Amino acid sequence: MQYIKNPMMIEEKSFEIIQGIIDEIRPGYEFKNEVEEKIIKRAIHTTADFDYLDILKISDTAVNSLVDALKNNATIYTDTNMALSGINKKRLDDLGCKYKCLVAQEQTASLAKEKGITRSMAAVEIAAKEEGRKIFVLGNAPTALYKVMEMRNLEKLNLDAVVGVPVGFVGAAESKDELEKTDIPFIISKGRKGGSNLAAAIINAILYSM
Amino acid sequence: MQYIKNPMMIEEKSFEIIQGIIDEIRPGYEFKNEVEEKIIKRAIHTTADFDYLDILKISDTAVNSLVDALKNNATIYTDTNMALSGINKKRLDDLGCKYKCLVAQEQTASLAKEKGITRSMAAVEIAAKEEGRKIFVLGNAPTALYKVMEMRNLEKLNLDAVVGVPVGFVGAAESKDELEKTDIPFIISKGRKGGSNLAAAIINAILYSM
Repeated sequence: MQYIKNPMMIEEKSFEIIQGIIDEIRPGYEFKNEVEEKIIKRAIHTTADFDYLDILKISDTAVNSLVDALKNNATIYTDTNMALSGINKKRLDDLGCKYKCLVAQEQTASLAKEKGITRSMAAVEIAAKEEGRKIFVLGNAPTALYKVMEMRNLEKLNLDAVVGVPVGFVGAAESKDELEKTDIPFIISKGRKGGSNLAAAIINAILYSM
Repeated sequence: MQYIKNPMMIEEKSFEIIQGIIDEIRPGYEFKNEVEEKIIKRAIHTTADFDYLDILKISDTAVNSLVDALKNNATIYTDTNMALSGINKKRLDDLGCKYKCLVAQEQTASLAKEKGITRSMAAVEIAAKEEGRKIFVLGNAPTALYKVMEMRNLEKLNLDAVVGVPVGFVGAAESKDELEKTDIPFIISKGRKGGSNLAAAIINAILYSM
């Protein structure tokens, strides 16, 4: 069995093939700018799903806000360990950024139980009390995304941006529609699709563009 | 903003909606059996992608082989930390199964460099030398999947089953087509789609069916 074994070549070749398929299925498709191109192509690279050409929405201030926060030692809060696993932590370490998934922690479980809310929501409450600039990277829990919006409305949470790509059938699409109405800098996937893998890929695309 | 906050209700409601959509888009669609139904629906739950109705292929012996291995303290080897993160480790602990992602380990990097192969391939070589029953859960690296097949052909690797769902544009589809030709018990996603999230979801579906 013959196959390409060089990781750099595999990645380069993948992005060539992705552009080739876009040329084929969507002749004349134009990305808004270079960073958006990188983000959307990495989303497709991670999912092999060309729906992301249409459903990935990046607010006007999102890229600048994310880059600025990442250059200023922001903390990335994920809603799953899976999203955290997929993020390039070497790059974040080099930038002096922190990253955490509070959802699995003991204090989060206690708070969730006490208040009768999801652990994802409790994790947002705990994050809100922490110092420093904040990026939320949510690939799973619409309840976390709703909680972020609620707390910011009540001026109980400061944040720089949200990568809001919860996947699923209960609240995912609706939560992202709500986020789109706010002035929070956002990257979202419209509709049901999304996921922890996508959330990580989007942050990585931003990191690789810096 | 009103939204469902109870995790059990969210999951139950999600699977109801998934069945409703299947009824709508594929009237008369029949799952082969109850476990296949659980696996495919969980794949859809994780991805919101109904393509998995058609592209998820489960070999005749796969479920029995996976269940038997999991009941007999098998080790799960993943090709990414992301897949490992997504697997229900509480269930695996209860069964006395082990789970690991060798790819990120120092010895794997050294071996890969020495041999000029991917770390994913080196991880398979290292796994092959370990004692005990083995399940490979591959959501990312076609090279790992090729390596598993090569080593088994050479009788240098014993394994019980492969969840082989690498995603991507270089070798992913081809590697899964090759696996389909072997007598290794397999669960695959045909074509380019797949992923670490899907790999984890498939193992979880098996665990929840036991």
